Formats: sequence, structure tokens, C-alpha cells
Amino acid sequence: MQPPQGFRLAGIVSGLRKEPHRRDLGLIVADGPCTAAGVFTQNRVCAAPVQVSRRRLPRHDARAILVCSGNANACTGEQGLKDAHRMSELTASGLGCDAEQVLVASTGVIGRPLPMPTLEAGIPKAVAALSVDGLGDFAHSILTTDTKTKIARGQAETATILGIAKGAAMIGPNMATMLGFILTDARIDAGNLQTMVRECTQRTFNRIAVEGHTSTNDCVLVMASGRTDPPRDALAESIRGVCADLARQIIDDAEGANHTILIRVTGCRSDADAERIARTVASSALVKAAVFGADPNWGRVVSAAGYAGVPFEEQDLSLTMGPLLLYRDGTPLPFNADQATDYLRTNRSVEFHLAFSLGQGQCEFLTSDLTEEYVKLNADYTT
Amino acid sequence: MQPPQGFRLAGIVSGLRKEPHRRDLGLIVADGPCTAAGVFTQNRVCAAPVQVSRRRLPRHDARAILVCSGNANACTGEQGLKDAHRMSELTASGLGCDAEQVLVASTGVIGRPLPMPTLEAGIPKAVAALSVDGLGDFAHSILTTDTKTKIARGQAETATILGIAKGAAMIGPNMATMLGFILTDARIDAGNLQTMVRECTQRTFNRIAVEGHTSTNDCVLVMASGRTDPPRDALAESIRGVCADLARQIIDDAEGANHTILIRVTGCRSDADAERIARTVASSALVKAAVFGADPNWGRVVSAAGYAGVPFEEQDLSLTMGPLLLYRDGTPLPFNADQATDYLRTNRSVEFHLAFSLGQGQCEFLTSDLTEEYVKLNADYTT
Repeated sequence: MQPPQGFRLAGIVSGLRKEPHRRDLGLIVADGPCTAAGVFTQNRVCAAPVQVSRRRLPRHDARAILVCSGNANACTGEQGLKDAHRMSELTASGLGCDAEQVLVASTGVIGRPLPMPTLEAGIPKAVAALSVDGLGDFAHSILTTDTKTKIARGQAETATILGIAKGAAMIGPNMATMLGFILTDARIDAGNLQTMVRECTQRTFNRIAVEGHTSTNDCVLVMASGRTDPPRDALAESIRGVCADLARQIIDDAEGANHTILIRVTGCRSDADAERIARTVASSALVKAAVFGADPNWGRVVSAAGYAGVPFEEQDLSLTMGPLLLYRDGTPLPFNADQATDYLRTNRSVEFHLAFSLGQGQCEFLTSDLTEEYVKLNADYTT
Repeated sequence: MQPPQGFRLAGIVSGLRKEPHRRDLGLIVADGPCTAAGVFTQNRVCAAPVQVSRRRLPRHDARAILVCSGNANACTGEQGLKDAHRMSELTASGLGCDAEQVLVASTGVIGRPLPMPTLEAGIPKAVAALSVDGLGDFAHSILTTDTKTKIARGQAETATILGIAKGAAMIGPNMATMLGFILTDARIDAGNLQTMVRECTQRTFNRIAVEGHTSTNDCVLVMASGRTDPPRDALAESIRGVCADLARQIIDDAEGANHTILIRVTGCRSDADAERIARTVASSALVKAAVFGADPNWGRVVSAAGYAGVPFEEQDLSLTMGPLLLYRDGTPLPFNADQATDYLRTNRSVEFHLAFSLGQGQCEFLTSDLTEEYVKLNADYTT
């Protein structure tokens, strides 16, 4: 698969990671100046590359995005900021542009200084490897504990939209997810692109969670090369579709997960109420462990809704799990436990629908189940 | 151990539970009218016994508390309310008092109707078993997945205070914990008792969490028989000590847990800010899994503080894990990873101290680690 017109990509092995043969340095370069925008983690503790890239956006003359994986360059103090700047300078000198035109991103372990000699040697190699066929290498180079690359594609009339993301864990995005990159050949000014990516993110990446831990490194960066001129609405719709596709791929590949869980909430007084309830249910370790065990313990879903901070009475609420109505207007219904267990056991994607009778507000939120494997993976991540 | 003057207790096997020999019905009875107060879950979905007991408090003539375990009587609609009332009526008729003088509580599976014939037969047996030596039986009868009874005792000059609790999981109290019962022979009017239990709970049970899921059945009930007359302050202090002791016991016996984790936050602009940060860190599955694995992955602690919603800059924050200073004024310090791993591996009780430089606000919050055993236990709770 080739990128939209005007872009080349690379993903190389620089030696940042413990695993010696894994790609760990990714580079996206535009042939000419692009409009660019981005959304970043709202965590007060944010990584050095987030601080550097945030100050540079939106802009009209972006040229490149450099991404390193294996080291988050977060909680690294003044040295971390210097290192993030240096990453952009090294890239700029390889490309013959200004450091301000280069965006940077990192993902990996928090609190360790970047091994700069490794990057000084690696960045020129990444520049040399740039190619219109580099998408697969780039998509691999940004992964950490992900098991699959995450790529999505959209079309808005003449314009092509390409998205690449990574996820796995520490997924509780607030304004963005771990890392997401959107490229398009459409023409759009930077201010409108910024508005568009913010709105798309709000309804896609911001409505997924693995364990709900908002990362220090979250960002979604978008670059538009301006080769084609699709209608604004078609472009926004297509970017949203690409973001939603990537968000879904992140949850499908969540660390240790056996299930993707859709929490659908309807009939609330507002969309904000519905989102608050959906997010609270999706964050309950008890709900997520029950799905893992195929235990139709629906009381956990209803009780999680109850502490979301949204006023309602029990008789306002009905609950459906897949095809099974379990709770109607505040009263439990008899159900076939074997059938309910079977639904959870045989479907990888399961759905809980909390239907309120209070208004038109609604939200769909995606999460994964909580498994013993998730705990095992996260009990010895750095050691 | 005997209860304070004026109380008798019982805990019997009624047959509510799957395990045929486990005590499942507990009763506390005062010889005469007591002042009584209570705090209850703030979950919008609250169990029938919570609804019944909440309406009856505070009062000056309480006589008894009846507790059943194995069935939460939550999400059970109108029938559940009728059953909770019936529990108090059956107890009242056995004691020769009014149903309004009896408080009720339940804990167990959500969404199943109470087996009333079992309770109709069991309640008279519980009344017949009442004894000043019944504390151990009562403390056993209220447990679900707890592995230990939880009892604490205090003294306020001449007055004795006794507390009994249950915990294990679905612990994210908001105004109370799973179940807590405080008995004292002190004289105090019901209004002051209500204020006292609310204040004590705020700083004890409301500052612990296992997975943070606020239960439908949380309540702390307190009865005072009025036989002695301690100073108000001494009584409040002692009740708070008993609550703190029980809260600690709940976390020490959290489901599947290998560690008790104290999150101490100091130097914030307000106690409320400190509590918000402490609660957010204590709720992070990634922090809890790292402690389980003895992985000194301190970036997870700092990054969780960052998304608590409290404004700060990284240079305002230092982090100590046990005796090890890991992060000072926003800069990571070199540390001996073996020593750090050893601290987490060899201590069951571990401490993270987040020291801010913004003010005098502080909070101590207790949680447990997230283990594979916790997931296993909660993956097949009802099936």
C-alpha cells in the first residue's frame, strides 16, 4: 500500500530497543511544505517530544515526523527537552529544512534518558531509507507491546487519507491516543485541519480505553500535502472514519485482551451524560474481568453506571447484553445463564447496551477485557 | 472478645450461600433503645436494604441490625424492597420491637431475588442464638470472598468502641465501605453520632480502594447504647481509630492481593487536591500491576498523578518509593534497580510518597496490588 501523494516513509533498526532486530525509528517526510495539526495528551506530566511538537502546531510548512519507540523520553527533565530538540535538528539537517518544520514523537519506558549516540547514528540511516514503499516498515517501527500494525485508509472524492497508529496499553486517551499519524494529499489550511483533527479525535480515540491510564506521550499528528481539493465535509468524514478504524484496531489488539467490549449508552439527558456513564462502565475492572471469564454478572454493569456521577433512578434503566434483555426498567428478568455465558464465550466482540428513558443523549465507547495475561505483562514491563 | 455493654450478637448458617456450612446471617441486638446513625453508598443504583436503612437513620431508639451475605438484594426492583422490609419485620417480631427499629444490610451477588423462605426460617434461629459471646460468629457471617474476619476495638475513657467490617472486592467506597458496623456503650445523641460517623468515614473508609468500583451495598452503621459518658472528642477520635483500623484490614485482605500500597501525597494546594491525586494513583491498574511484579516502574506513578485533574508543573513534584528518592523536582535520579525491586519484593506494605511544593494539602490513601489471582477470582464469581 502506498501513501497519499507527496509522502515517503521509513522504519529502521537503530538499536534503541532491547530486542536487537526490531525496527524502532520511524520517519515520515513530505516532498514539500504541508499544513499540519495535532492533538496531544492532557496529562500534566507530558513527554519532551509532546512539549516540542505541541509548540510547533498548527503550521503551514511542516516537512517531517520522526518517531522513536522503546523510550518515551518522559519524566526526563531538562535533558529530555534538549534531546527532543536535537532529534528534530538531526532530521532537519538530513532533509535540508528547518528544525521547526520537524515534529517528533516517542513511546516506551518512562523516566530514562534517550541514548543520543544511537539516535545520532540512526537518523541519517532513516533519511536514507525513505521510500514510497516504506509504510509497512514505518508502521512496525512505532509499535511497543502491540502485536499488529495498525493502518487505516480512507477516500474523500479525489483525496486519499492514510492513518497509522500504535496502542496496546496505557490507553485512556484524553485528547489523543498513544500515537496516531494521519497523512492526506488534500488541500486544507492549518487552522481548519486543527479543528478537524480535534473533533475527529473527540469521537474516536477519546472514546476508547484499555485500563484508562492517560499516557504522557499521547499524540495524533496530521499532515496534508495539498495535492487535491476535496469538499471539507467529505474530508472531515473520511478522517473521522480513519480515526475510528484505528481506534478499533487499538482495542482489538489491547494488551493481553481476549474480548473487545462495546458499551453503548442511549436515552440520556445529554451526550456528555451518556459518555460519562459509558466511560465509567468501560473502566470497571470487575466488568472487564467478568467478560474475560464469560461470567454474565450484569449487576456489575448496572452498578458501575450508578457511580458515574449522572443522576438517574433505577427504573429509568434497561440493560441488554448482545441479544439478551437482562434488566428492564429497573427490574431483573429471568435469563438462561448458559446462553448468556455462551454469548460471552463464543464472541470476541461483545456489546452491552444501557438504554435510559431520559432523553436523546448517546455514546459508544470501546474497551477490552481484563485478563490474567494483562496483569502478567504489566507486572514486569521494565525489569 | 466481648462487645460493649448492652449488645449481643449472633451469626448462623441459614442456607443462603452456595457453601452449605458457611455462616450467612448475622444479627446485632441492643438490650434497650440505642442512638444510631449511618452512612451509605452514593451509588445511584443502591440495594434495597440500603434504601430501607437510610430512611430509618439517624434515630434514638434503634434495637437491631440484621445482615445477610451471599445475596446483595440489589437491582431487584419492587420485590427487593418488599423483601428488605420483610427482613426487618421478621426480626422485630422475634425481638418484640417495631420494624422501624431494625436496620438491615446485605452483601453478595447483585440482581437475584432473596430466597425468602430461607430467611423466614433463619431469622428466628439467629434471634435464638444471640449471645455476648457471638462476636466471632457475627464477624464470620458477613464475609463473602474475604479470607479473614475484620474486628477493631477502641477505648474513649470509660467507653468501649467495637467495629466489625467486611471488604474483599468491589471496594471503591464513596461515603462508606462494603459493610461496617460500629458499636459503643457511650452516650451520644443521634444527630451528633451521625456527624461523627460521616466525618470518620470520610478520612478512613473513603480513602481506600481495591479496584475502585463503588458498590451498591456499602454502608457503615453505628449504634450507641448510652451506658457511659466519655468526652465527645475522645469518642470521635476513638471511632476514627477503629474505622481506620478496619479500613486497613480490608485492604490487607483485598481479593487476590499480595501488597498493601500506601499512597502519601503532601505539599498540595489543598487536602482535596492531594486526595484527588492519591485516589488517581491508587486507581491505576498499571501502578498496581507494577507493584505486584516488583517492577520499580515509577513513571507510572508520576504519570497517573499527571492525569488526576490537578494543575501542577513537573518541577513541583518529587517521588520517593519507601526509602528511595527516585525523582526530584521533575528530574529523574539514578537509582539501584536491584535495590528498588528488592524493596517491592520483600515488603508486603509499600509506600509511594509524592511530595509537591505547592502548599500544605495532604492525603494518605490505601490500595492493594493488581494480581493475576484478582482477575481469576473475578472472572468467574457468579458462574
